[in-house]
Amino acid sequence: MFKVIDGGVCAAKGFKANGLNCGLNPNKEKYDLGLYMSDVVCNTAGVYTLNKVKGAPVTVTKNHLNITGGKSRAVIMNSKNANTCNADGEEKAEMMCKLAADELGLDANEVLVASTGVIGQIMPIEPIESHVKELAAGLSYDGNEKAAVAIMTTDTVKKEYAVEFELDGKVCRLGGMAKGSGMIHPNMATTLNFITTDAAVSTQMLQKALSEIVKVTYNCLSVDGDTSTNDMLILQSNGLAGNEEINAENDDYEIFKKALYTVMSEMTKMLAKDGEGATKLLECSVTSAPDLDTAIIVAKSVIRSPLLKCAMFGEDANWGRVLCAIGYAEAEFDINKVDVDFVSEYGVLEVCRNGAGIEFSEEYAKKVLASDEIIIDVRLNSGDAAAKAWGCDLTYDYVKINGDYRS
Amino acid sequence: MFKVIDGGVCAAKGFKANGLNCGLNPNKEKYDLGLYMSDVVCNTAGVYTLNKVKGAPVTVTKNHLNITGGKSRAVIMNSKNANTCNADGEEKAEMMCKLAADELGLDANEVLVASTGVIGQIMPIEPIESHVKELAAGLSYDGNEKAAVAIMTTDTVKKEYAVEFELDGKVCRLGGMAKGSGMIHPNMATTLNFITTDAAVSTQMLQKALSEIVKVTYNCLSVDGDTSTNDMLILQSNGLAGNEEINAENDDYEIFKKALYTVMSEMTKMLAKDGEGATKLLECSVTSAPDLDTAIIVAKSVIRSPLLKCAMFGEDANWGRVLCAIGYAEAEFDINKVDVDFVSEYGVLEVCRNGAGIEFSEEYAKKVLASDEIIIDVRLNSGDAAAKAWGCDLTYDYVKINGDYRS
Repeated sequence: MFKVIDGGVCAAKGFKANGLNCGLNPNKEKYDLGLYMSDVVCNTAGVYTLNKVKGAPVTVTKNHLNITGGKSRAVIMNSKNANTCNADGEEKAEMMCKLAADELGLDANEVLVASTGVIGQIMPIEPIESHVKELAAGLSYDGNEKAAVAIMTTDTVKKEYAVEFELDGKVCRLGGMAKGSGMIHPNMATTLNFITTDAAVSTQMLQKALSEIVKVTYNCLSVDGDTSTNDMLILQSNGLAGNEEINAENDDYEIFKKALYTVMSEMTKMLAKDGEGATKLLECSVTSAPDLDTAIIVAKSVIRSPLLKCAMFGEDANWGRVLCAIGYAEAEFDINKVDVDFVSEYGVLEVCRNGAGIEFSEEYAKKVLASDEIIIDVRLNSGDAAAKAWGCDLTYDYVKINGDYRS
Repeated sequence: MFKVIDGGVCAAKGFKANGLNCGLNPNKEKYDLGLYMSDVVCNTAGVYTLNKVKGAPVTVTKNHLNITGGKSRAVIMNSKNANTCNADGEEKAEMMCKLAADELGLDANEVLVASTGVIGQIMPIEPIESHVKELAAGLSYDGNEKAAVAIMTTDTVKKEYAVEFELDGKVCRLGGMAKGSGMIHPNMATTLNFITTDAAVSTQMLQKALSEIVKVTYNCLSVDGDTSTNDMLILQSNGLAGNEEINAENDDYEIFKKALYTVMSEMTKMLAKDGEGATKLLECSVTSAPDLDTAIIVAKSVIRSPLLKCAMFGEDANWGRVLCAIGYAEAEFDINKVDVDFVSEYGVLEVCRNGAGIEFSEEYAKKVLASDEIIIDVRLNSGDAAAKAWGCDLTYDYVKINGDYRS
């Protein structure tokens, strides 16, 4: 139904982007400052961290969207410094928007801002001030990769995804970029995510679709159980595809929502697979649950278990840890009906039926778990609801990366 | 007020214990089967895992105490096999009680049972059957260490603690043993804990004291966020100290509760310090909280953060991770009033005032964090309540131990 295309945040018509190194990161090879903008004004929806400690950029972005009534033109973003827990944080975030706006001929409130990196270090504004002209001048319709690279921190790969689809006879595009590798246990959205579309969708319907989809994608992702202070997901529609604007829950809305699910679930998997130190992508699929919330709670509980994550790193079919994590999930169902399999490209390993273990070959288990993508297939056998959650294994490198992140 | 004494589970008058290797563990040097009993019947209180998956021994122990109305004489316990998620689990757990009871001349319902080890492997009864005679014959008033060693799994040290105090002019003793190193995030109690006293206390008041103290000790402990299926804490009083039985919330009850807090908080710290792979004991002390529940929730949120645990392993004063974990704790308070210090025997490092960072010397920070016991001192400045939580750092060895636990 959806054709996968290139272009990330520039896949949709009328979006330009750029990225460069401004000196926040002493490694001159690493981009640390990014920018993208739409040729015309965008309807804009957002979801943000629920952490009480909110990065100053989160506060400023929300304020700007309140002032404009959900309209925006551009987003400026940086890595290396989260601009969080600083007394002058909001002032600096506002300055970032103003600097970009002046260069682009926009009102500062039409610019949104996002930062990621170390918490609690004063944000130096000079590097941004001295590079914003170059940044704006270099905006291009194929600059998406530069922006995607600029927001990476401990990420080892850039994350972009885009699809093409039809609405109302018009070709539309929806694409985005994301960053995040550690401090990932989103409660609204994960770290930094930007999704653009040229499909015309009202701000209200954009927000509705985003809130529904975030619940079953980003919010079902956990790398380490730590909900970041700077989580932010911005979805912008500039309407340049020329379709009739979606402003009700009609057939076009359902198509748009499916496109959004496709992009967001693929980016969620990219984030999980690139979790700090990860060698394996883990997916917990919970089916035949009594209701959606139960399915989500159980899937997230399994995917978050450090013991299971270590076992998967060791390629050890220690399914008792899956049952343990299902058992402490805060939901109601009959544990004695639960079936569990481990599934990979190399086969299906049946390990548990009706809450009790069944015999399996350790040799075959090793083979199935040797894959770098493992599905933990949980059937509650208590209803019709289903959900997935994504995470990764827990490895020596996670400890190494986080034992000395600031240096 | 309380004199620390030796003796663990045998510190109280009239308790004998023993331990040996019966062959569950192929390493003949490692004890895997333990037993202790009181010369006379005990009032008994217990707290158990809230995991939906409950080890068969948990179910059988609860049943026995229901049948006897909270009376017991002996406890049999093993390591290496958790006897959980097995179709014949309860049958095997009952057999263990019966085997011990026959040897000791007791009713099977007067014997409690506890198991720890791998989940989902059939419990072999033959090794126990063939060694229970030797186990019972070897019971002695100074056999506490043997029993404490028999319940160890990945623990690197045995955990015992005991105190002496006076009630009603009579000298009383309260002591216990515990095991636990991984799958530690107790929700009622952690893995296996046995506490005995010769102070006379009614079953009802025993249970009341235990439930109050477990909330602020074991339930504030987290090694990895995984709530075990076999958590069990048994508190037995045989009354041999000769004091007047405590059966109301009088002054003696308060003294007894303080003794219980002393033993349980010290054992909690032992468990945290010996967390799988741990090099440091972490204590999060939350003060000036609006209420006790808020203090507990915030302290547990900080102590559970994998990112903070890694930073402490790396001796990196990355206090932004403390603020992040305080921020995502599910409680209500003003984040802008929060102060944070890192405290150790080497000094006090002030890192955050009113929710914002303050400058500190990295050299001094390294010195403070070089200790193997770190206190994260959090002041909410929003009330009078206080609580502590305990945990440990997250290290390469945690991953190593859990990447291949079953082999």
